Amino acid sequence: MNEFELIHRLTPALATNSTVVTGAGDDCAVLDLGLPEQLILFKTDAVVEGIHFTRETPPEKIGRKALARCLSDIAAMAGTPTAALVTLGLPQDFEVDRVTGIYAGLNALAARFQVAVAGGETTSNPERLLISVALLGTVARGRQVLRRGALVGDAIFVTGELGGSIAGKHLDFEPRLAEAQWLAEHFPIHAMIDLSDGLAGDLRHILRASQAGAELLARAIPVSRAAKLQARAESSAKPPLLAALGDGEDFELLFAVGSGRAVALLDAWKAKFPKLRLTCIGRITAEPGLKLRDKTGLHSLETDGYIHFA
Amino acid sequence: MNEFELIHRLTPALATNSTVVTGAGDDCAVLDLGLPEQLILFKTDAVVEGIHFTRETPPEKIGRKALARCLSDIAAMAGTPTAALVTLGLPQDFEVDRVTGIYAGLNALAARFQVAVAGGETTSNPERLLISVALLGTVARGRQVLRRGALVGDAIFVTGELGGSIAGKHLDFEPRLAEAQWLAEHFPIHAMIDLSDGLAGDLRHILRASQAGAELLARAIPVSRAAKLQARAESSAKPPLLAALGDGEDFELLFAVGSGRAVALLDAWKAKFPKLRLTCIGRITAEPGLKLRDKTGLHSLETDGYIHFA
Repeated sequence: MNEFELIHRLTPALATNSTVVTGAGDDCAVLDLGLPEQLILFKTDAVVEGIHFTRETPPEKIGRKALARCLSDIAAMAGTPTAALVTLGLPQDFEVDRVTGIYAGLNALAARFQVAVAGGETTSNPERLLISVALLGTVARGRQVLRRGALVGDAIFVTGELGGSIAGKHLDFEPRLAEAQWLAEHFPIHAMIDLSDGLAGDLRHILRASQAGAELLARAIPVSRAAKLQARAESSAKPPLLAALGDGEDFELLFAVGSGRAVALLDAWKAKFPKLRLTCIGRITAEPGLKLRDKTGLHSLETDGYIHFA
Repeated sequence: MNEFELIHRLTPALATNSTVVTGAGDDCAVLDLGLPEQLILFKTDAVVEGIHFTRETPPEKIGRKALARCLSDIAAMAGTPTAALVTLGLPQDFEVDRVTGIYAGLNALAARFQVAVAGGETTSNPERLLISVALLGTVARGRQVLRRGALVGDAIFVTGELGGSIAGKHLDFEPRLAEAQWLAEHFPIHAMIDLSDGLAGDLRHILRASQAGAELLARAIPVSRAAKLQARAESSAKPPLLAALGDGEDFELLFAVGSGRAVALLDAWKAKFPKLRLTCIGRITAEPGLKLRDKTGLHSLETDGYIHFA
């Protein structure tokens, strides 16, 4: 049973109350605590030694990543982060300098995004370092963008370039907060998610929530230089397109917008964010499932980016 | 370097912003998000296999405890819990039934206190199960009770009976939410904390925050039946009084209130909560340090409950 199947089994019976606008199953929980113009966003995310970073990762980068992942989820709702709590699970042999380095990296990113680090706790996790961040944010009422809401015919966009994040980007990616807020303010974004599991996997989350399918254009997928270099360096490495479709931890924004607004959005984006690529990579379809079109035809696409050539 | 020294080193430089009313160093963070009549409480707490529970602990009790600890912290601020997120660190060999049991126990307690479980996530923590709960709550503006604020001459009260929690209470204690809310509504509670580290250790947190000392009366400390039974069962066990002073995880309320209100409070308490003992155990002093008075005189008391007999 994988993570998604487990969550699927656990979530239907969860306790709820009148504050919950959107519960389990989106990038953040959305709560209504009675603020006249805003809803509350609530998110937790953990990084674990040996999985999301190694013993050799500079501590500042570990702390930065732990917070940046949560910020990316707030971005995916078009929200603004407010305050974080940090839970450290410390191995028995922890070095104080490593912990202060983690806090320095996390704290510097928090300060840059005006996020308060309002406390936290330490506990023992004897075999490996674990950092869990809980983050609160806000979003203007009605402007939160969910995974559900993509409509047949919508254009699918992605920011930045994809694949090969393991070469370094997974530690120093930029949470797309300003970009997401601008998008939600100026265009009717129907659905959005941040790319943590990989383009094919995360697009499937949108499709499942929106009860729709999608068709991607192979030649439109923005493949990163890192993915191309990895493929060139090792003959056993996956092709760059497969890396762009399947690699995790890109932390770019993936969203669906009415196709009639696609050109206006691209023009406005270039004026506003000239340094960050925005690419239309396909469209939402009525037919369920995820398809990839290349010059040889239309192929089924697996969650891990695997392409079924007929 | 212990947990408190580490936190002391990390907290001075934390990023902050205008939402933070009370940051690191109290039972919860207190945030002002602009609600006209309320402040937000924000807390995280983690339980780890082999430390807070064992492989043999029934899963429902693990889940219950994970949430109850956070609820107890909301109680210590005189707040009301609203919504929780659950982070599960799962070992490689996790059993689905164990995880669903944990969720069942947590969820049942959440439902009883009208707390929403608004989502969470799972990650891998290969060697042992770890559960981190993030909890949001609210408190009426100005009614939050902090650790600081105890005044010289205040009477010190504790709910319930103390010591020997390991015999079972650490898994099925009642978070004192209704009691704390009632206290803050009806009496000017100057300082409050929930007992997680032990009476002597947690009282020291209040004293440090309030820049005061305290004198406890040995014969007034409400020693639990469990602590007495443990002492009787094993000749090597600590004396019951030492258990009541030093054992962790009682999760009772410890608070300071003006001594002029002490009798009225006791009377009103007995009428309102006839089943739960409330005991005046001492008073706040100008002289720093924690002292214990017994029939042989006045003794210094260590954080772990150790008594220095002169």
